[in-house]
Amino acid sequence: MTTTNSDTDTQAGFAHYFCDVDPQRKRVSRNLKWRQYPADVVPAWIAEHDFRPPDTVVNALTATIKDYAYGYNDLENDAASAFVGWVGERYGWDADPELTDTHVGALAAVTAVITALTEPGDGVIVTPPIYNMFLEICPTSHRCQLEWLMRYDTNNGWHLHPDDLETLLKNEPKARVLLWCNPHNPTGWVPDQEALVRIVELAHTYDFYVVSDEIHSDIIHPPASFTPMLTIPGAAERVITVTSPAKTFVLSGLCFAVTAYGDATLRERVQTAHPPLLLGNAPRTGLDAAIAAWHTGSDWVDALIAELTQRRDQLQARLTAEAPEIRFHAPQSTFLAWLDMSSYQLGVTPGAHLLEHARVAVQEGTMFGTNGDNHVRLNFGTSQSILDEIIDRIVSCLNGGCA
Amino acid sequence: MTTTNSDTDTQAGFAHYFCDVDPQRKRVSRNLKWRQYPADVVPAWIAEHDFRPPDTVVNALTATIKDYAYGYNDLENDAASAFVGWVGERYGWDADPELTDTHVGALAAVTAVITALTEPGDGVIVTPPIYNMFLEICPTSHRCQLEWLMRYDTNNGWHLHPDDLETLLKNEPKARVLLWCNPHNPTGWVPDQEALVRIVELAHTYDFYVVSDEIHSDIIHPPASFTPMLTIPGAAERVITVTSPAKTFVLSGLCFAVTAYGDATLRERVQTAHPPLLLGNAPRTGLDAAIAAWHTGSDWVDALIAELTQRRDQLQARLTAEAPEIRFHAPQSTFLAWLDMSSYQLGVTPGAHLLEHARVAVQEGTMFGTNGDNHVRLNFGTSQSILDEIIDRIVSCLNGGCA
Repeated sequence: MTTTNSDTDTQAGFAHYFCDVDPQRKRVSRNLKWRQYPADVVPAWIAEHDFRPPDTVVNALTATIKDYAYGYNDLENDAASAFVGWVGERYGWDADPELTDTHVGALAAVTAVITALTEPGDGVIVTPPIYNMFLEICPTSHRCQLEWLMRYDTNNGWHLHPDDLETLLKNEPKARVLLWCNPHNPTGWVPDQEALVRIVELAHTYDFYVVSDEIHSDIIHPPASFTPMLTIPGAAERVITVTSPAKTFVLSGLCFAVTAYGDATLRERVQTAHPPLLLGNAPRTGLDAAIAAWHTGSDWVDALIAELTQRRDQLQARLTAEAPEIRFHAPQSTFLAWLDMSSYQLGVTPGAHLLEHARVAVQEGTMFGTNGDNHVRLNFGTSQSILDEIIDRIVSCLNGGCA
Repeated sequence: MTTTNSDTDTQAGFAHYFCDVDPQRKRVSRNLKWRQYPADVVPAWIAEHDFRPPDTVVNALTATIKDYAYGYNDLENDAASAFVGWVGERYGWDADPELTDTHVGALAAVTAVITALTEPGDGVIVTPPIYNMFLEICPTSHRCQLEWLMRYDTNNGWHLHPDDLETLLKNEPKARVLLWCNPHNPTGWVPDQEALVRIVELAHTYDFYVVSDEIHSDIIHPPASFTPMLTIPGAAERVITVTSPAKTFVLSGLCFAVTAYGDATLRERVQTAHPPLLLGNAPRTGLDAAIAAWHTGSDWVDALIAELTQRRDQLQARLTAEAPEIRFHAPQSTFLAWLDMSSYQLGVTPGAHLLEHARVAVQEGTMFGTNGDNHVRLNFGTSQSILDEIIDRIVSCLNGGCA
């Protein structure tokens, strides 16, 4: 496995990837983030950063287009191998390509696994405030949504405590799945190993499965570090991990994800629960991009993390100085900030106010369920200058610059 | 809507699309058809022709790659509109973009619709010999597979007679869906309008739905002509059409299909049966290719049909002259030939014999279910010279040239 990028990348460094965000080009190329709102609105909503993938990914896609290779292919095993190589190199996780499956997307995979392991009426635990799309799974599959709520304190910010999970499990014996999100979206919280060990122990004790969404795991701000759930002792019989290069490498439109198992029996149970044809096959360009990204993207991701950490610190420094009433804990991971706007008296949906008056589009906190009131999720995954513009507009608005 | 191809196409004609099949390039670019068997085997198995899509499709994909447009997009409505334009222009079908949904593939869509409209134990009618993957749906979804068998006679070849459907329905009240295949794979039969009218009448009388797979409908050999099922009076309440540009434009790896409805209530019933997230979203490159193909591919498809009709006639003329014991009716559509090898005493799986001794890979007839014994499906969607090589090998083998 090669872990270096192209010569261009090596020679020029990676800075050019992170400074040339072109809104007009984004709009012309049908980018949803930049097209959802009028052109005078700066978008900081959907969880997609504005940078482009490394040249090696672009080159792989270009080769496929030039070869007219849009028909049936035999790349699935290559994608599983690339995944295993990536998580081994980045996280020391000795995953098994024979227990790795490809999917048309992370949400499709999460939903397939949950509905495979539960029956209608069974309990599925979510951890609000939580990624808004997770809140669509139970209502549309007739599962019972249970809530393990995050705690907040001024020292640690938002986090989950396993004691609260155990209390919930004692009261809700129908809980069959924990839909875990590590790192956590929208708060960026990264659980420590002790918390993961405890969750796996509880999974055995209380007979539930953990669906571990690790799609944000590449972007961890030092000194935080990421532990894959399946590296925890005893996890194999209880954990299914879903991940994708989509968030890291900006590939959501190419519709690719993997599920990883530690146990063949558990995998077979999931695989036989749905007609395999129902779930479709991963598309060619998703496979191409994932294989290239995971084989060659390590240096680029290191540069991306450094850039996003700078952006996070830029946001924190400016908000602390210019809008100190926003309660904001710098996230340990992701390019998403979870901002408590309560002090500004903008109502339970401050995002609507910011859209109308600051012309900045953020994700409304209420979309993330319980405890989302008065919050917004702000995407800081953009260039330094665009993030400054976003902050300028919000600060100006909050400080009376807009009506 | 523009219906012309690029200047290159206009000036040079389309001949260059159909003569330069390069097996080595196919293998290097990970094409499954050309990689599944050793390099000395000529592939005529999976339903993919060997030509490349029109330049307009390649250009659309190239633009997306150059624009780094792999993130979230807003193209779904464009794809629905392109579909409606295509079927209006080609078939006079006034489809409704508001009743058109995108999917990650035709089989995924077919399976989603069938499992939405039935419960475990309900009957789903298939029409053997039939596309092998259709035979995987009932066993994996615990539906009861019922068979409306094709008839054969020497004048008309393989065909379905609605009288047989009515007999089946009288005996099998649990039949809830007819999985229809128009044009029919593997036989290439194209039903006439009278048959479609009768099926829709029976659907009302016997209370079942028709899932009409029309993925092969673009490639019809004159004088046959194609009638979309949803243009039949009364079809709206009973028919869901699934189609894709994948077969015509060689796009199976880009994972895109549409479902078309004539009735909003029926559509809602299907849409609410599964968690929407389970089914995923159509990938960017699938959307790009479909939009370009349907907006600009009409002249190219006319040329493709002419080419494939020549290939069909080439196959028929040579088999008639050189292997007259193969029972073969020239298909009205598709690039697939359904060959009865019974006279050659090769056993129920003549494909295994051809693979071993002729070094030609065909699809074994037994894969297509009842009445598939002693048959093979041969894909003639390739260049004139490669098809000659396929025929040479088969004829030589059958006439004693192989042991």
